[in-house]
Amino acid sequence: MTAYRTLEQRFARLAALEGAAGILGWDAQTLMPDGAAEARGDQLAILRGMAHEILTAPETAGELDAAEAAGGLDPWPAANLREMRRVQAHAGAVPRDLVEASSRAVSRSEMVWREARRDSDFARLAPHLAEVLRLQREIGQAKGAALGLDPYDALLDSYDPGMRRAVIDPLFSDLTGWLPDLIARAREFQGARPEPLPLAGPFDVAVQRDLGLRLMAALGFDFSRGRLDISLHPFCGGATDDVRITTRYDEADFGRALMGVLHESGHALYEQGRPAPWRHQPVGAARGMSLHESQSLIVEMQACRSHEFFAYLAPLLREAFGRSGPEWSPENLHALNTRVRPGFIRVDADEATYPAHILLRYRLETAMIAGDLAVADLPGAFNDGMQELLGLVVPNDRLGCLQDIHWPSGAFGYFPTYTLGALAAAQLFRAARAAEPALPGCLAQGDFAPLRDWLRANVHEVGSLLGTDDLLTRATGAALGMDAFRAHLEARYLGA
Amino acid sequence: MTAYRTLEQRFARLAALEGAAGILGWDAQTLMPDGAAEARGDQLAILRGMAHEILTAPETAGELDAAEAAGGLDPWPAANLREMRRVQAHAGAVPRDLVEASSRAVSRSEMVWREARRDSDFARLAPHLAEVLRLQREIGQAKGAALGLDPYDALLDSYDPGMRRAVIDPLFSDLTGWLPDLIARAREFQGARPEPLPLAGPFDVAVQRDLGLRLMAALGFDFSRGRLDISLHPFCGGATDDVRITTRYDEADFGRALMGVLHESGHALYEQGRPAPWRHQPVGAARGMSLHESQSLIVEMQACRSHEFFAYLAPLLREAFGRSGPEWSPENLHALNTRVRPGFIRVDADEATYPAHILLRYRLETAMIAGDLAVADLPGAFNDGMQELLGLVVPNDRLGCLQDIHWPSGAFGYFPTYTLGALAAAQLFRAARAAEPALPGCLAQGDFAPLRDWLRANVHEVGSLLGTDDLLTRATGAALGMDAFRAHLEARYLGA
Repeated sequence: MTAYRTLEQRFARLAALEGAAGILGWDAQTLMPDGAAEARGDQLAILRGMAHEILTAPETAGELDAAEAAGGLDPWPAANLREMRRVQAHAGAVPRDLVEASSRAVSRSEMVWREARRDSDFARLAPHLAEVLRLQREIGQAKGAALGLDPYDALLDSYDPGMRRAVIDPLFSDLTGWLPDLIARAREFQGARPEPLPLAGPFDVAVQRDLGLRLMAALGFDFSRGRLDISLHPFCGGATDDVRITTRYDEADFGRALMGVLHESGHALYEQGRPAPWRHQPVGAARGMSLHESQSLIVEMQACRSHEFFAYLAPLLREAFGRSGPEWSPENLHALNTRVRPGFIRVDADEATYPAHILLRYRLETAMIAGDLAVADLPGAFNDGMQELLGLVVPNDRLGCLQDIHWPSGAFGYFPTYTLGALAAAQLFRAARAAEPALPGCLAQGDFAPLRDWLRANVHEVGSLLGTDDLLTRATGAALGMDAFRAHLEARYLGA
Repeated sequence: MTAYRTLEQRFARLAALEGAAGILGWDAQTLMPDGAAEARGDQLAILRGMAHEILTAPETAGELDAAEAAGGLDPWPAANLREMRRVQAHAGAVPRDLVEASSRAVSRSEMVWREARRDSDFARLAPHLAEVLRLQREIGQAKGAALGLDPYDALLDSYDPGMRRAVIDPLFSDLTGWLPDLIARAREFQGARPEPLPLAGPFDVAVQRDLGLRLMAALGFDFSRGRLDISLHPFCGGATDDVRITTRYDEADFGRALMGVLHESGHALYEQGRPAPWRHQPVGAARGMSLHESQSLIVEMQACRSHEFFAYLAPLLREAFGRSGPEWSPENLHALNTRVRPGFIRVDADEATYPAHILLRYRLETAMIAGDLAVADLPGAFNDGMQELLGLVVPNDRLGCLQDIHWPSGAFGYFPTYTLGALAAAQLFRAARAAEPALPGCLAQGDFAPLRDWLRANVHEVGSLLGTDDLLTRATGAALGMDAFRAHLEARYLGA
């Protein structure tokens, strides 16, 4: 057997380990009883430690050297080998003890976060978060030293291969320059129109769930290889051939769960659409979190906040909830779902103010990783930033720095990908519409096939064959930029 | 660090791997979408292969040798070391390839079984079952050679340490001698009384579930370390500190789900009551499947089919389902739940005919392992046995040899423990009543504390410190025997 073939077997085993961890992680956030948290933490730590051991074994390094020296691979295997090396370089940079210590600290911290968030009690989380941060800084330094990157770039690279602060900083600086003005003008623009009519609840949770399932089916979610469940913090997780999305229901407001399901379904379509023959190999993986977020936002924001989509959705909603009246018109639903209103909670933020939440978190987490911001000072810095960027006074940490699971989960370097994803979504949607002129009309019929097929061919089935910018250039004619996103916001929110 | 301490760490890692596999196995039977079966099979095979690798590593053998040579351990660590050696000897007897091949074959076979059972299509399962059997025979031969046992005893020993055909054969031969007559006399005895009044459905599934949860709470199930869910074939699984039981609901008959919940709760109490400081070590494990089944049957059959329990249950049922009338009297409910009626389905069988199902399966599986019965001949042999032992003509394989998941799961050597467990349950319950005279009166109040506390002290918290017969002798004054079971059946079914 060639070194490359041996590596394929090894990485298929790694994919199975990752899949096992994916299901156990999903379970921990959906069904697991509280008392199992410590045992689950041990289980996940062991699995991650074992994956790390396989990746860092001298045999793996030897096979990579041999396969690279042998060369002569076709494009997909060659890209697979390149991705294997990337994954191995990341893993090899971090000692196994540190991997397991971090996994355990994260499991504990995530559990404490649930209670601390509920009780708005930052002090309870602080020591656990400090430990998670300490270990993430150590990991960032170790990876940075091995990969020739600064620690934050090294962490970022593990979520979004090839992404760098040098790319983000100018984009975010540009955004900071015009976003506050756009938000102000959008509020003025909307303020000059009649206030959208509110929808009166309650909205039966079982009906909300059925509606979500119906839209997932329309989008093309494959229920033989996935599920919809409930968790405090919605996510898309699970394993290959078993993609599990979650949402949370509120009887008073069906929109949050529904838009959440559409968002996570966008992620799920990417996972379910990855190139089948390569789905257990690194080259078959999704290409980084910015593109992943672009797939959720292209569904939730680009397609499903369009006038066309609400023309399809309005009668569905009226029928499902047994309601009628002018507040259920497509126009009113569109107006309700595109209102620009600064708020405390990132996941509830509208499309225009959302990037401000990310600018703040990016600023804070780069400072934390650089050692310029201590955990004890986080609530104050968070609240100052909310005042500055969105003009809001945060009343408690539940509505402030305790709202997100990312930092308690050790996910430093993840937040910027949300806004990078919004940029990519706008860029991809513009290209899809240009390529498929029938697309908007189809959305108005609940027919997602033209959009889904274009995304499948241009994004999902590409896997990790190309880097993010190469993929975007092939699909849209340009590398990641700000134009399409700015134009989109101006069109939707300023009538431009 | 001493060799023994190193072993403790190694076995704690093994326990975490087993816990991970336990949750993934639970998920596969409860929630997993069909299309994930192959990936899940890979995940479980990898985890089992890794556990096997740890157990069979030369370092583990060396540490066991060193710890045994060093000696001087207190009773619990000494018993732990003994159990470590037992587990390692079992694992070391089977090559890793065979472990992984068997795990994969079982995953496939279990999935096919679900469809084959639904469609009563034995031919569909046959090649998969043949492959599972082939691999189990190979495992039995390998273990037998290493442990100095015949292949069936070697398989049996992995479910019930120390149990042997030489113990079972005389017990089962004794049972075969008087059981058919007891069944006939019980039917005569019951036939001379008025037929119990039927309960008219439907029974709301949500109410059934709430009732099950209420009884679990009364039994002392710890919901911070466990759950109740739904699966086709009810079981108790999961992991340490995360004990998951399942049931299946039938709107027409609440009794099946309710008694199933009580049964699985008995298993769960054993798992949740294992000695806490040792719960990640081999000595902290439950002592074999016969004792495990004794704990489910002591709850379901000994305690919860007693007159006292129905005095407690009857008003609960009337209130929950909003019903009344003579059919809801404790006496009628007791009569309904202790009816002796030969039937096709083992898991629905009454206490008196149940052992006949086991006598048949024991006969068939010993023959299959010995190579004296081919898979192709199984349906015929199964149906012949049902005619002979219970006088029933099996109309199709769904009601015959396709009804149980055990063989498709590769669990040869497991069936006899059901009836050995029934013997042990009768023996333990007699001892518990003698030690706690208030026990029956408490059951009539829904107070399970005296029974639970006695079981905790005499069974659960003993873990694997003692062998089955030593445990039973300490708890009841005698090794496993037939007396208590026969006396119990004669008292309950013949009014003796």
